Amino acid sequence: MSLLSDPARALSEYVSHASVSADPTFVSGVASAREFAVARLKELGFAVEIVETPIHPVVLGTRGDPSWPHLIIYGHYDVQPADPLDLWESPAFETEIRDGRLYGRGAADNKGPQIVHMAALARVFEKYPDLPLRITYLIEGEEEIGSPSFSGFLNENKEKLTGDMVLVSDTGSPSHEQLVVTTGLRGLTALEVKVIGPKQDLHSGVHGGPLLNPLQALAEICASLHDSDGCVSIPGFYDAVQKPEEWEREELMKMPLTESKYAEFLGVEHFHPPKGYSPLESLRFAPTLEFNGMGGGYQGEGSKTVIPSEAFVKITCRLVPNQTAEEITKLVKEAIESKCPPQVRIEVTVTGGGDPYVVVPPGKPGADLESPALLKKAFAAAENRIEEAFGTHPIYLREGGSIPIICDLKRVAGLDSLLIGLFTNEDNLHAPNESFHLGIMKKAIDAFEKFFLDLAER
Amino acid sequence: MSLLSDPARALSEYVSHASVSADPTFVSGVASAREFAVARLKELGFAVEIVETPIHPVVLGTRGDPSWPHLIIYGHYDVQPADPLDLWESPAFETEIRDGRLYGRGAADNKGPQIVHMAALARVFEKYPDLPLRITYLIEGEEEIGSPSFSGFLNENKEKLTGDMVLVSDTGSPSHEQLVVTTGLRGLTALEVKVIGPKQDLHSGVHGGPLLNPLQALAEICASLHDSDGCVSIPGFYDAVQKPEEWEREELMKMPLTESKYAEFLGVEHFHPPKGYSPLESLRFAPTLEFNGMGGGYQGEGSKTVIPSEAFVKITCRLVPNQTAEEITKLVKEAIESKCPPQVRIEVTVTGGGDPYVVVPPGKPGADLESPALLKKAFAAAENRIEEAFGTHPIYLREGGSIPIICDLKRVAGLDSLLIGLFTNEDNLHAPNESFHLGIMKKAIDAFEKFFLDLAER
Repeated sequence: MSLLSDPARALSEYVSHASVSADPTFVSGVASAREFAVARLKELGFAVEIVETPIHPVVLGTRGDPSWPHLIIYGHYDVQPADPLDLWESPAFETEIRDGRLYGRGAADNKGPQIVHMAALARVFEKYPDLPLRITYLIEGEEEIGSPSFSGFLNENKEKLTGDMVLVSDTGSPSHEQLVVTTGLRGLTALEVKVIGPKQDLHSGVHGGPLLNPLQALAEICASLHDSDGCVSIPGFYDAVQKPEEWEREELMKMPLTESKYAEFLGVEHFHPPKGYSPLESLRFAPTLEFNGMGGGYQGEGSKTVIPSEAFVKITCRLVPNQTAEEITKLVKEAIESKCPPQVRIEVTVTGGGDPYVVVPPGKPGADLESPALLKKAFAAAENRIEEAFGTHPIYLREGGSIPIICDLKRVAGLDSLLIGLFTNEDNLHAPNESFHLGIMKKAIDAFEKFFLDLAER
Repeated sequence: MSLLSDPARALSEYVSHASVSADPTFVSGVASAREFAVARLKELGFAVEIVETPIHPVVLGTRGDPSWPHLIIYGHYDVQPADPLDLWESPAFETEIRDGRLYGRGAADNKGPQIVHMAALARVFEKYPDLPLRITYLIEGEEEIGSPSFSGFLNENKEKLTGDMVLVSDTGSPSHEQLVVTTGLRGLTALEVKVIGPKQDLHSGVHGGPLLNPLQALAEICASLHDSDGCVSIPGFYDAVQKPEEWEREELMKMPLTESKYAEFLGVEHFHPPKGYSPLESLRFAPTLEFNGMGGGYQGEGSKTVIPSEAFVKITCRLVPNQTAEEITKLVKEAIESKCPPQVRIEVTVTGGGDPYVVVPPGKPGADLESPALLKKAFAAAENRIEEAFGTHPIYLREGGSIPIICDLKRVAGLDSLLIGLFTNEDNLHAPNESFHLGIMKKAIDAFEKFFLDLAER
């Protein structure tokens, strides 16, 4: 019996391969997660090719006749780092099922949704082994580090991806009863800034006074990047930002999420959105500049009276149409470099980037009338099959997260994506105690089984 | 043969007891360093008492007749944390001698200088076992965490310390040929600030926009604490600061250290002293507010797109006469709390403090004419015996570092201190590759041998 006939067990095994792409000490977990994905595709009858990249290879699976409509399914076998480990209730890479959720790093992002697609296909192929739908599976291993090898991969393999559309389930939905079809993704640019002062750590009593402390310089640089009204203060940062369409604001109103419920979920009392956006609008329609990590000097218990030699900050910006990663990276880098005082040195490293993406659903104002038939069919099938399985129509919304490669697939291969969100806020993505809701999993497998059959119909 | 007859070997053994007082995982190293100190004092003929405190006990050794002049010798058996460990050329707690220096954490601060005093006393007592000088040894184990138990210890044991003066070698000198007698120490106040935002770490794509990132709030709070002219911008911070006397500026001019040599030593191109002070003046005569450690969010390799739940900064201020730790702590805490934006919470913990200390050398303008005879004799003996052993007169200067207990000893027991500096900048205190210069050690033992004999002369 195929492992995919027991989706929770399949997911549990997939999560147990600790595939943290950012950390070289996890290289064997990355490799075994990749092997797991390959084995599942082979079970489904795919021919599988491993395409080497400078970091973690891409898994490329193919099935079907070149004359058939061609669907590309995207996923990633890598996961975020699991720290801080002490906040996990059960070990990050030993799954545990509690209250109808499967806990473990990567359960929701992106291993659970991948198992949904694969389990649905397993059912379909069991009944219709010759289903007239060409499918190319594309599962990468560098998504959580910004997919640095993906555009190179794409340029070298784009003839294999001359298809009709991409299916992705790596976005969010508001609840296990209300799915979202994501119609846009924020872009991303990532930078790491290092501030360098004295040639080594110094005693802050013996040497404190004449020096500019690198932590002070770093704090002053970071503090200069936002205004008090929540906006990024870098000149030109908002110039290309396109305000949301009226239908997008209307869809947002359908979300079963109030500001106060969202504040309670996050555990905050007051929001701080940029001027001109409500809190819920800001996370879908506004760009950001966030500090993801900052450090320098003594990190341990108690005190150590030291002036550190260096300090760092990791920054990412989320971008919205029509900002470009190239332009924003340049503006941010220049702004930071221009704020560096002469008493310290600064090193700004660009560590990743990708443009924002938008697909207007067929039928909505501004939709592309020349979209492939398969894309139109897929949006309609998604609407129907989601309603059947979940009891509600999907909501069509741009989302705050980024999948830079979705934009690359559009730019290089001309492919639009149907993004069906299977995880929710409660799944704790990128945080301790990540989980995947097994009720969503079950309903989504039902919906996708019929969805794939719909796509193959003439 | 006594271990103290081979001072380098004694120091090597003392350093091998990893007595990091700030870190509970080093508790056994702290205990064994304490036992080492006890054993040496017993070798020297001291009666030793271990006085319990809430953290690490104080070693109290006594010898001599109550009718004799009474010298208290202070030292500390604890050391700073050794991290970052990867920057040490030899392991921090396995000593190595290279180019006439003994390397290891604590070699200079404060184990080497303690061995100097003890080795000199070993020679003195060998020749004059009944030397008419009463000595009380006081070696604590919490100096590197701000001596939190010391004032309690002092209040309970002050009758044992009704003496004439204190001898301390836990200050710096400019070179192994030029010693400094330290006439003042900066005070210290230590605070830890925690900024608390959402109830857990969040995905910066899915949730970025409506929230104030705790790292951003922290950076903005920290950046608000200094002016662009290098001064602390907290209202009232400088109100009590007393400018240095003319003779102090003159002594500073005798230092064999130019600004450019100091800049080269530190590895900086430009200084950033507070307005009104030269770089070399600022580290002895001006107060500071330093960030000793800052952190939050992802600290590992690569990137993790997270909005952290919390961020922290560890702050110490160095204080000069007539600032008080109580007043400055209050001002800093209030300033930080007042800068906290409503979107996050803040917790400010006061982790230590001590007032600044000044002793004007007998004979200098402003000296206390009623000082004990032993103190006057000690200053004269130090001048003569240092000149004999090192070839130069000592320079009399206030220093940038803090030994809060020196001020407590004055306040509670009425004792002034003679502070003879035996370590130099090149010894890398509180930094990787700390070492103690064995040439200074040898000359200083010669000088202290005669110094102790001088003190006992009628």
